[in-house]
Amino acid sequence: MGCSETDAQTATTVLLSADVRGIDSHGVARLSGYVRLWEAGRINTKPHIKIIHETPSTAVVDGDAGLGLIVAPFAMNIAIQKAQQCGTGWVSVQNSNHFGIAGYHAMMALQQDMIGIAMTNASALVAPTFSVEKMIGTNPIAVAIPAGQQPPFVADFATTTASNGKLEILQRKNEAAPLGWVQNETGMPTQDAAILKKGGAMLPLGSDREHGSHKGYALGSIVDIFSAVLSGAAYGPWVPPFPAYVPMPEDMPGKGLGHFLGAMRIDAFRPVNEFKQHMDHWIERFRNAKTVNGQDKVLIPGDPEREMEKIRMETGIPLLAPVVNDLKMIAEKFELVW
Amino acid sequence: MGCSETDAQTATTVLLSADVRGIDSHGVARLSGYVRLWEAGRINTKPHIKIIHETPSTAVVDGDAGLGLIVAPFAMNIAIQKAQQCGTGWVSVQNSNHFGIAGYHAMMALQQDMIGIAMTNASALVAPTFSVEKMIGTNPIAVAIPAGQQPPFVADFATTTASNGKLEILQRKNEAAPLGWVQNETGMPTQDAAILKKGGAMLPLGSDREHGSHKGYALGSIVDIFSAVLSGAAYGPWVPPFPAYVPMPEDMPGKGLGHFLGAMRIDAFRPVNEFKQHMDHWIERFRNAKTVNGQDKVLIPGDPEREMEKIRMETGIPLLAPVVNDLKMIAEKFELVW
Repeated sequence: MGCSETDAQTATTVLLSADVRGIDSHGVARLSGYVRLWEAGRINTKPHIKIIHETPSTAVVDGDAGLGLIVAPFAMNIAIQKAQQCGTGWVSVQNSNHFGIAGYHAMMALQQDMIGIAMTNASALVAPTFSVEKMIGTNPIAVAIPAGQQPPFVADFATTTASNGKLEILQRKNEAAPLGWVQNETGMPTQDAAILKKGGAMLPLGSDREHGSHKGYALGSIVDIFSAVLSGAAYGPWVPPFPAYVPMPEDMPGKGLGHFLGAMRIDAFRPVNEFKQHMDHWIERFRNAKTVNGQDKVLIPGDPEREMEKIRMETGIPLLAPVVNDLKMIAEKFELVW
Repeated sequence: MGCSETDAQTATTVLLSADVRGIDSHGVARLSGYVRLWEAGRINTKPHIKIIHETPSTAVVDGDAGLGLIVAPFAMNIAIQKAQQCGTGWVSVQNSNHFGIAGYHAMMALQQDMIGIAMTNASALVAPTFSVEKMIGTNPIAVAIPAGQQPPFVADFATTTASNGKLEILQRKNEAAPLGWVQNETGMPTQDAAILKKGGAMLPLGSDREHGSHKGYALGSIVDIFSAVLSGAAYGPWVPPFPAYVPMPEDMPGKGLGHFLGAMRIDAFRPVNEFKQHMDHWIERFRNAKTVNGQDKVLIPGDPEREMEKIRMETGIPLLAPVVNDLKMIAEKFELVW
């Protein structure tokens, strides 16, 4: 598409990190979507990504309509540098595009003995509590925390009951969604996994008011505000849609998608070895908590992805036939040897 | 109890801010609990609260076993000062006690044109996904974001499906809890609001695995780690219990309760007037989203508490008879004129 060799490698690494960790919806399966956005003129493959405002612990980055896969690591590196200088670094990003899995960017902080935080807004698929309108995206939050002998704590989750990827899998299989994942066009509960195409919406974490959906709505809103109102990106229902065929919203109040990235140096709080000993202790105690009958163990955030990574690094990444076809079409389009 | 006049006034302000906002479980109803903790020697009414480590944007505070109601505002003021200096400030607190409503501390940042963040760990009442053991507290998160013409965005929520306060109300009324709030001692669903006294546990936001309880568990864990593993406070099942009659856990890996407080200066990212215009725009768009039949409007986080505050500032704070009795007993104990 015209990316530099370095940028192409970064983007590939981010996409493959999703596949290898088992988050198939955010890996190479998305490549054709990015190509279509580029064809629609919505992705700049030679972006001049730059800081437009900064203080010792903060920055705002203009992604120049680049791939989020490249813009977010650029911004995360600034957060890490600022944390090296003054303890923590916080970067809000405007004028970007989809950045892949949030976890990849948060995990960049781990090798520096820092806690990493990454979030992004996304096109509106989710109805706030009491709303029938889709107002916010699945707006994920990732937090990566280093440990010592134990693997790191890596939480990476959409602020909805279920991710859009899980809903898409049910659609492909023509299966029903559990109650509490989606609502229909009048805001009533439904199990139709394809309801988003019929005016329905995804539900915030908590599903309904009685089970705390106002908390999931608040979380998704915080991600939107930190990522976009702080940076000057588009927010709420004005976030640019991922499918290139969906027209851009009118009267956009900002530029492109927004992200928010943070890094906190462990030793800005406490000696690293002390912290890591206590994180190991924390993880071991939680992993050995008494389980509900039939469950092996209590999981630590990041465990399922790590187990998948172990398997796929040995046996490879299985791809669905439609994804293989997409990749073949891309190879033909760009005259690559398949 | 021996607090200084200033500290007593701060503690009173924090407690009354809960009552006036309608969060009755965290207001003066808690006063007798604090008195009992003091009688048990677990609260130091003349604490020497101090910074034990710091960088330009971070600090760790030792609360010296003081009331959290006093320790947390002290720590939040440090976060605000650091944000004035270098854009953001982040303070992790050890050796503290219960700090009242998280929202009060987060809202301290608003008058400085900053975003405020407050969280705390709490004694273990919640079972992680797949666990029957109570491992984390209701670990609330509060985020306060200033706006212009509109009132501020103030989210303040326990990372569980429902707060412990709501469960206590159902117990008093002898009513059933909705499915998804609690589980019994074998980890099975139950509607018994008093199940915590019978080996049961509260459930993380999301209720069950299918509805994202692993996300609520991750959120509660992040609060625990930021508040306690970063600061040197006790964490997980070792957090000191609020009821003074419950013995302290053995082999505690840290001191007292932990909090985490943050402040981000708006103009460290973007001019304040620009940000506030966009926050107003965000709030107005969300408040005017099309509603589910029968619902007046989509609420902005903070709306219900603001409406309650308006009412109670006029008509006063209604107190339940047991709370009035508790206050009378405290007045007698300290020979105060009632």
